[in-house]
Amino acid sequence: MSPAIQNTLDIEAELQVKYHVAITRDVFSPDNPLLLETVDRSASSAKQLVILDAALSAFLLDRVKAYFAAHDVAVEVIEVDSGEVNKNLDTCLAIVDALERSGARRQSNPPIAIGGNVLIDVAGFSASIYRRGIPWVRVPTTLLGMIDGSVSAKTAVNHQGNRNRLGTFHPAMRTVVDTGLLASLPRRHLVNGCGEILKMAMIKDSRLFSLLEEHGPDLVASHFRTEPAEEVVTRAIDGMQSELRQNLWEKDLRRIVDYGHTFSPPIEMAVVPELLHGEAVAIDCLFTALLSYVRGWLGGTDVQRVARTMHRVGLPLDHPLFYDIDMLERAMEEARLHRDGSLNLPVVQEIGSCTFTQEVTRDELHQVTALLKAVAQSAGEDLPALALQH
Amino acid sequence: MSPAIQNTLDIEAELQVKYHVAITRDVFSPDNPLLLETVDRSASSAKQLVILDAALSAFLLDRVKAYFAAHDVAVEVIEVDSGEVNKNLDTCLAIVDALERSGARRQSNPPIAIGGNVLIDVAGFSASIYRRGIPWVRVPTTLLGMIDGSVSAKTAVNHQGNRNRLGTFHPAMRTVVDTGLLASLPRRHLVNGCGEILKMAMIKDSRLFSLLEEHGPDLVASHFRTEPAEEVVTRAIDGMQSELRQNLWEKDLRRIVDYGHTFSPPIEMAVVPELLHGEAVAIDCLFTALLSYVRGWLGGTDVQRVARTMHRVGLPLDHPLFYDIDMLERAMEEARLHRDGSLNLPVVQEIGSCTFTQEVTRDELHQVTALLKAVAQSAGEDLPALALQH
Ligand SMILES: NC(=O)c1ccc[n+]([C@@H]2O[C@H](COP(=O)([O-])OP(=O)(O)OC[C@H]3O[C@@H](n4cnc5c(N)ncnc54)[C@H](O)[C@@H]3O)[C@@H](O)[C@H]2O)c1
Ligand SMILES: NC(=O)c1ccc[n+]([C@@H]2O[C@H](COP(=O)([O-])OP(=O)(O)OC[C@H]3O[C@@H](n4cnc5c(N)ncnc54)[C@H](O)[C@@H]3O)[C@@H](O)[C@H]2O)c1
Repeated sequence: MSPAIQNTLDIEAELQVKYHVAITRDVFSPDNPLLLETVDRSASSAKQLVILDAALSAFLLDRVKAYFAAHDVAVEVIEVDSGEVNKNLDTCLAIVDALERSGARRQSNPPIAIGGNVLIDVAGFSASIYRRGIPWVRVPTTLLGMIDGSVSAKTAVNHQGNRNRLGTFHPAMRTVVDTGLLASLPRRHLVNGCGEILKMAMIKDSRLFSLLEEHGPDLVASHFRTEPAEEVVTRAIDGMQSELRQNLWEKDLRRIVDYGHTFSPPIEMAVVPELLHGEAVAIDCLFTALLSYVRGWLGGTDVQRVARTMHRVGLPLDHPLFYDIDMLERAMEEARLHRDGSLNLPVVQEIGSCTFTQEVTRDELHQVTALLKAVAQSAGEDLPALALQH
Repeated sequence: MSPAIQNTLDIEAELQVKYHVAITRDVFSPDNPLLLETVDRSASSAKQLVILDAALSAFLLDRVKAYFAAHDVAVEVIEVDSGEVNKNLDTCLAIVDALERSGARRQSNPPIAIGGNVLIDVAGFSASIYRRGIPWVRVPTTLLGMIDGSVSAKTAVNHQGNRNRLGTFHPAMRTVVDTGLLASLPRRHLVNGCGEILKMAMIKDSRLFSLLEEHGPDLVASHFRTEPAEEVVTRAIDGMQSELRQNLWEKDLRRIVDYGHTFSPPIEMAVVPELLHGEAVAIDCLFTALLSYVRGWLGGTDVQRVARTMHRVGLPLDHPLFYDIDMLERAMEEARLHRDGSLNLPVVQEIGSCTFTQEVTRDELHQVTALLKAVAQSAGEDLPALALQH
């Protein structure tokens, strides 16, 4: 201890976090207890706040009201415009206003957020900063929200053109997943969710990949009402939770779940709302698979399976910005910043397992973009360019 | 499990938090290692960001620059206007901009905030939401910041007239306390800090109370350069950390450190910047001591010691709004909201120990305000009104 230092205190503390994810049917059927259990029934004066994705009003407003009315719970529903353009501080502050008006307390009357993951990310961020954090409950209504957001602790808003630049780690105390809500989800958003399922399958679950390969198109067509919807959703959620559980606050920045999330973020932001999140992620998954192929790690057959599955499910295989080498390099620079100086790029070695790499050369980017063009043109059916290279 | 529930996952995770508070001399002397140790010296490209309270520019800018220059560390200093009126989201976003410009990463190049606790609360909030939380370092320059904020995990901004309505728990990785920085602090802010020392003394440290009683006026006059400044500061910090350590995230809302913080918050906010935080807290301490006296728990001599010490140190004994019964009731209502439905009002039973009460009647408020008037008029020297009552 230097002579100038007179006294030091080391303070250590531990935060225990517990939360609950339930996969259910008919979440708004009055006999389903999952949401009711989170309502504070003691304080008769306050109303239960429901933060509803405005796009869902036509489908869900009456059902939500009827559910709580059946249990004599007074609700205040605020409808919030969603979509990536509304994922910002203004929307957050509108939700904060509603928390204030509804008399949200610090522990016992959590608001319930129902909607796409944009709404859920913003609602969670609002709950996390209101009175330094209050509990909240979520009901994701998109496939992406169900499989990727449901176990996540992340909340966020975009800020000044940067994806999720402001946010916190503040998991919902309860998440209720009901794939029945996908009935009204537009096809493109079902496909979008398949992008994140693809990611999870490629990094750690070859069985999930086979299911998507075989049944993906049917699942999309049926809005996940046919077999094996339940197995697919459950496996995807389970893969996510096993990765997150040990690293909820991302102290470890080598995360295989970042697969597909290195090149895509600034591209997705640059063209909002042209590319959806899961679409951008899927293209990045293919792009990075081609990098692995160029390095001789991933076989051509596997690349072909990936591209063909994407194509059949309805995912785009490329986007003009994925051919922009400067953009790709900027994306890596930004990823390095976000991963504290290291690229930590997850790379799939065979479908279902992956490793990390710390460098990608400009030359490799050129090779990968050339391959991507060929793969995209062949629509994943046959891959002449790949055959040429190896 | 209801038949509708198909699958549930319970996720448990633990966040380990470690941070460090150092009491030092000459923090900006080039041979003091405490700040240098937090600088990332590997990434030569990035600059060390320093967030400086603009009011301190004249006193500290050159010293801060010289400190880092002596170690060849390039710094970017942003000066931020402080004061309670600037404790808002706009100031937070200005700091976020600076984090963005300076290339703040997620783990290894923490910004350093130097200033009063307003600046420190806002800088901490900014760090806590930037990229879902980056580490930060703080150097409090007010007495209040040194003794009350230094071990705290709380960050905040005011929002729509409500004190600290938005915030997080995100302790600085390192806090450096150097009472030498108090040389330039205006007298009123030294007195203000004594308000929080008084609180800590009353709830758990009778020795600290005696020190303040005997030496308070001299400590204020010398800007905490005379004996027993070090013992007073160290005891106050130590009292705080022993309370916070077990309850950093305030899962337990019965907190004795909330003493003085039940009636004062809305009054302080209503008259910003008329009453400083520690002044409002001190009046609340006296007010609540009188409540205890009315209930026959605290002796008249102890009340007299409190009032006389406040008066001699230069703290106000009352404020018109502390006679406004409706305001006092609203304050309790708001405290109940913030303590999840329970008042949890800490009440001192003898100097150095305290308990909780859950109700205060309107009649008691009337009695206490009558006593407060008498005590304030007698300036704590003799208390005829008290003698009359018991
Ligand atoms: N927190 C996390 O861990 C996490 C994980 C993945 C993605 N995200 C974020 O999620 C966002 C994307 O979420 P998203 O794909 O759910 O998009 P989204 O929230 O924009 O929803 C897509 C569209 O469908 C509408 N919609 C939602 N559910 C519907 C339904 N059942 N029927 C009809 N319409 C419906 C929405 O109103 C919206 O217009 C991105 O901002 C991304 O950053 C967060
Ligand atoms: N995070 C916590 O745990 C915690 C604890 C207590 C109080 N607070 C918050 O702290 C705030 C009050 O902080 P404060 O009393 O430090 O007020 P402040 O930050 O407004 O500082 C007081 C004034 O003195 C100036 N100043 C600061 N240091 C100086 C110095 N050494 N020399 C000359 N001028 C100096 C400041 O610029 C300001 O004008 C309140 O908003 C309160 O909510 C937070």
